Formats: sequence, C-alpha cells, structure tokens
Amino acid sequence: VARTVAVAELIEQARAGKPRAVARLISLVEDARPELREVAAALAPLTGRATVIGLTGSPGVGKSTTTSGLVSAFRAQGKRVGVLAVDPSSPFSGGALLGDRVRMQDHATDSGVFIRSMATRGHLGGLSWATPQALRVLDAAGFDVVLIETVGVGQSEIDVVSLADSTLVLLAPGMGDGIQAAKAGILEVADVFCVNKADRDGADQVVRDLKHMISLGRRGSGPAWRVPVVPTVASRGEGLIDVVDALGEHRAWMSEHGELERRRAHRAVTEIEAIAVTAVRARLGDLHGTDSLAQLGKRVATGELDPYTAADTLIHNLT
Amino acid sequence: VARTVAVAELIEQARAGKPRAVARLISLVEDARPELREVAAALAPLTGRATVIGLTGSPGVGKSTTTSGLVSAFRAQGKRVGVLAVDPSSPFSGGALLGDRVRMQDHATDSGVFIRSMATRGHLGGLSWATPQALRVLDAAGFDVVLIETVGVGQSEIDVVSLADSTLVLLAPGMGDGIQAAKAGILEVADVFCVNKADRDGADQVVRDLKHMISLGRRGSGPAWRVPVVPTVASRGEGLIDVVDALGEHRAWMSEHGELERRRAHRAVTEIEAIAVTAVRARLGDLHGTDSLAQLGKRVATGELDPYTAADTLIHNLT
Repeated sequence: VARTVAVAELIEQARAGKPRAVARLISLVEDARPELREVAAALAPLTGRATVIGLTGSPGVGKSTTTSGLVSAFRAQGKRVGVLAVDPSSPFSGGALLGDRVRMQDHATDSGVFIRSMATRGHLGGLSWATPQALRVLDAAGFDVVLIETVGVGQSEIDVVSLADSTLVLLAPGMGDGIQAAKAGILEVADVFCVNKADRDGADQVVRDLKHMISLGRRGSGPAWRVPVVPTVASRGEGLIDVVDALGEHRAWMSEHGELERRRAHRAVTEIEAIAVTAVRARLGDLHGTDSLAQLGKRVATGELDPYTAADTLIHNLT
Repeated sequence: VARTVAVAELIEQARAGKPRAVARLISLVEDARPELREVAAALAPLTGRATVIGLTGSPGVGKSTTTSGLVSAFRAQGKRVGVLAVDPSSPFSGGALLGDRVRMQDHATDSGVFIRSMATRGHLGGLSWATPQALRVLDAAGFDVVLIETVGVGQSEIDVVSLADSTLVLLAPGMGDGIQAAKAGILEVADVFCVNKADRDGADQVVRDLKHMISLGRRGSGPAWRVPVVPTVASRGEGLIDVVDALGEHRAWMSEHGELERRRAHRAVTEIEAIAVTAVRARLGDLHGTDSLAQLGKRVATGELDPYTAADTLIHNLT
C-alpha cells in the first residue's frame, strides 16, 4: 500500500511541475523496475494529451539549436515543453551521453521545461523500449509538447519518428549535395521540412529542390498533406515561429482527417508488440531442463535437430 | 510424397556438386516457403562439417580481392568452397545487390566454388534469418569451407561474425588513422588479423599497432588464443597461404579447448531464438477479434489501457 501511495504521489508531484518527480518516474519505467507495471497503469488514463514532435536530420544541420529555439517559441505561448534527446550509440562503446547539463543551458532554470538525454544503452531493446516509456511519463505529467530529437544516425531515427505525431526534418545548405545528402528514408517521413542556416549560400536551392521533390507527389491514396518547407536561422531565432505554425497546421489537418488517431494507434501497436516480444524472449531464455534453449542449441549444433523443430519445442513449452 | 522425393533429390544433387540444386535449396529456405521445414529437417543431419569463416573490415581494405584469393588457396588444397557475400542495405533503398555475376569472375567456371550474394531485404528479420539458412544449405551440400564476407557496415557485420567459427578482420594502411579507423567492436571479434596492401607505406605501423593492442591482452579467463597478424598483398596472391594456415591453427586450437563446440552451440541458440521470436511475432499479429493487436492499440492510444496490460492480454491469447 505504501508503494502505491508513493507512485500516486510521484505522479501528482510531476503534474505539479516538480522536475525531480518526473525524472524519478522516467527512471522507474526505463529500467523495468518492479514498480514499472504499477506506474504504467497509473499513467495510462493521463496520457494522450501531449503533442509529440520528432526532430531529425544529419549531424551539423543545427538540430540542438533548432530544438532550443522551438522550446522558446512554445514557452512564449505558455506551453510546458518536454525534450527527449535520443543519442544512439554503438553496442560496444557503451554510449556517449551528450548530457542533460551541457545541453540547452538557456532553459536550465525554466521549470516549464524538462530535458532528458536518452542513451540507447541496449538493455531490453534500447531505444524502442525506453523512449516510449519516457514519452508516456512526460505526457501524463502534463507537458503540452514533447520534442524528440535524434542525432540522425541509423535505424533508430526511423524508430523515433514512429513515436511522433508530426516529424520535422532539418536540412541545411552546404551539407554535401543538398537534399541528395539526406538519407532517402528521412525525406519520406517528413511532415514539415525546415531548411536551417537559410542565410547561407545555397539555401534557396535546397528549398527549391525540396519543393520540387514534394510537387512530384507522395505515394498513397486519400487526401494528401502538402509538406511545407520553412527556412530558418535557428541561431538567431528566425523562422521558428513559422515552424511552430506549420506544425500546428499539420496537427489540425491530422485531426480533421483521422490521421492523428491512426498514427497514435499505430504507435501503441508497435509499443505493445515490443513489450510482448521482449517478454516472450525472456521466457524463452528462462526455460530449463532438457528442452532449455542451451540444450536445444547443442542438439541443433550437432545436427541431431533442425532449428525449426527446436523453435517449435520452445514455443510449445512456453504455452 | 512427390514433394519429399523432390527435396531429397535436390539435396542429393547439391551434394553431387550441382550449383543449380544448391541455389534452389537456398531459395527454398530464405523465402520461408512451405517446403522450408521439410528442407530444414532433411539438411540437419548433414550439417556441422563445414569450416565457417567470417571476413570483415572497412570498405576499401580489399575484402573481395582477399576472399577471391582465399578461395583459390582453399581450392589448391582440393577443398570445395562456398561464399556468402552479405550486402546490408537501407530498409528504404531496397538493396544494392553487388551481383553474383560481377564478383569473383576467376571462379565463375569452377564447379567446386559456389557464390551467393545475400541482400538484407528485410523480410523476416533480414540477415539474421536468411544467412544462417544459406549457410546450412552449403554445409549440408558438402562444401568444406564457407566464407561469409560482409561489406563492413553497421550492426549486421557483428551478426555475421556470430555465425562464423573463425573471424578474419582485414585492415590496410592509409585508411584514416590505422587501427584507430577500425570500429572498436570489430577489433574485439578478430580471431586472425590480415593487414592487406602490405606493400604500401604504413603497413608495418598497422602490424605493430595491432600486435601492441593484442599484447595488452584480451578479456576473459581460460587459455587465450593469441591472435596472429598476417600481412598480405591479396591483389598479387601474397600471404594468403599464411592466412589459411593461421585459420587452420585457430580451428585446431578451438577444437582442443572445446571452443568450436561452444561457438556452434551459441550460434544454434541465436538461430533458434530468432526463429521462435519471428513465429511468435507472426502469431501476435494474426490474433483477431476484440483482443487483436489493432484493437488493443486503439485502447492504449486513448489511455483506456496501459501497454503492459495489453501485452499480457496478447501473450495470454497466444497460449
């Protein structure tokens, strides 16, 4: 009973804007502690209100500066803003955490802003596990906007995008060959393009190239969202209010066309599936005796058994 | 009955050295056709004889040339050699297949050599699914040596290494800052180092750096394998016989210390687990009705249900 009260109290404190309570809740869910299920159940009815925005783009386009500028723009509208800075790292290096403290010092003393670096430390599936949990905490704690920023490397950025209601893709002139330099997959997931460093040579060309690409049309049927291209100079705060407006228009469009609901249901499906597969995987590894994974592995290695029959045996024992 | 005969006949033809039968068997297992289980069961008792060698290294170190040279060296010993060239590609681009035909034309007319490009086309888990299956076919078809070559990009190279009995890591001088340029994880998995382009400036330094790194010792207890460093000029065929010898010594050492058995059991465990998880995931997606993944996703999205309870429901319905 004492623990239940503690979780309820933590959630209450988090909703009252206490950053330590928010941080504590995130720790409880991302490390899969015993309290995880209790916390998850308590958070659920409080979720679904935050606007979730994914930010991605190649290194050097100015993601951190843009994130910081967007935080200021949302704060000017009186909104509470959470930031999850996702920093995927090699499974071997152990993770170079950018650090909550060195990032975005402008907002360090603002109690309406909560910033958390998510390292993909790899336990329990890494990013695909911890980030949605942290997102639920911020949502339940009453943050109006949650920005998920990725370092823009590899598959994980796509995973992050799948968590967002709207995805903002950043480009900048002078990064290789303009939009050619961006990875194909990333251009396809953009709901809003931001061409940062728009005061530099070549920015107009990047904007033109993007608009041309967009005019070639998207796949799929149904009413199409026309992806806007917004020039910004994030280091001087220029254009950020236009980005906020474009994101607002995208959200309104999504609500109108049932797309917001569809995306959120899809996000939930991915999350449920990941939790279920993780649980099943753990149970497979927990089986003991002659039909344990280790014993089956030895029999497959010697050719006594084929791996499909071994997998059938495992699944049969699971049920 | 007719189909059973056909599979048995295909396996017989593959063992007799018919490349078309080998290719057909690989297609049957990698595409998860209905015959998959039958083929897997028929192959199992014939597997476990091939020596599996993983080759990896950064782009530009000469992996294709070295692979081709090693094929010649093994052929000179009268051994049948299979090559699986693994070409990981973006989940979006669809995969740039290097092509069996343009690779290693020296061996095109040699019936003792079978070459297959494995693109990670992503279905059923991509690489982690298709490559072990193809490996089993080549093993059962009586190839004495199977070389698995990767393009050396990302996580997939680590996955490939986990399939091999012995892993050969290639480096070359003039690739950035010597061994610093190689990714940390790759240096750690090497059983044999090959310093290719050893006639170039800086090769001695790479050899010295590697030997120094090795002298600092490996982690873990038990008798340690001292990783040899072999200089080669693959384009002129120099040093490749030394590489073959070093790999032979590593294999003898592994057999002596129970390491070969341990690695193969571990490989089988990984494979069984991947098959089981894929099967479970498919079953989760196949559930229908009010407790289907789609319906649960909608309830989680609205906050009616938390994702852990939803995952429990899914798993419960599975069993």
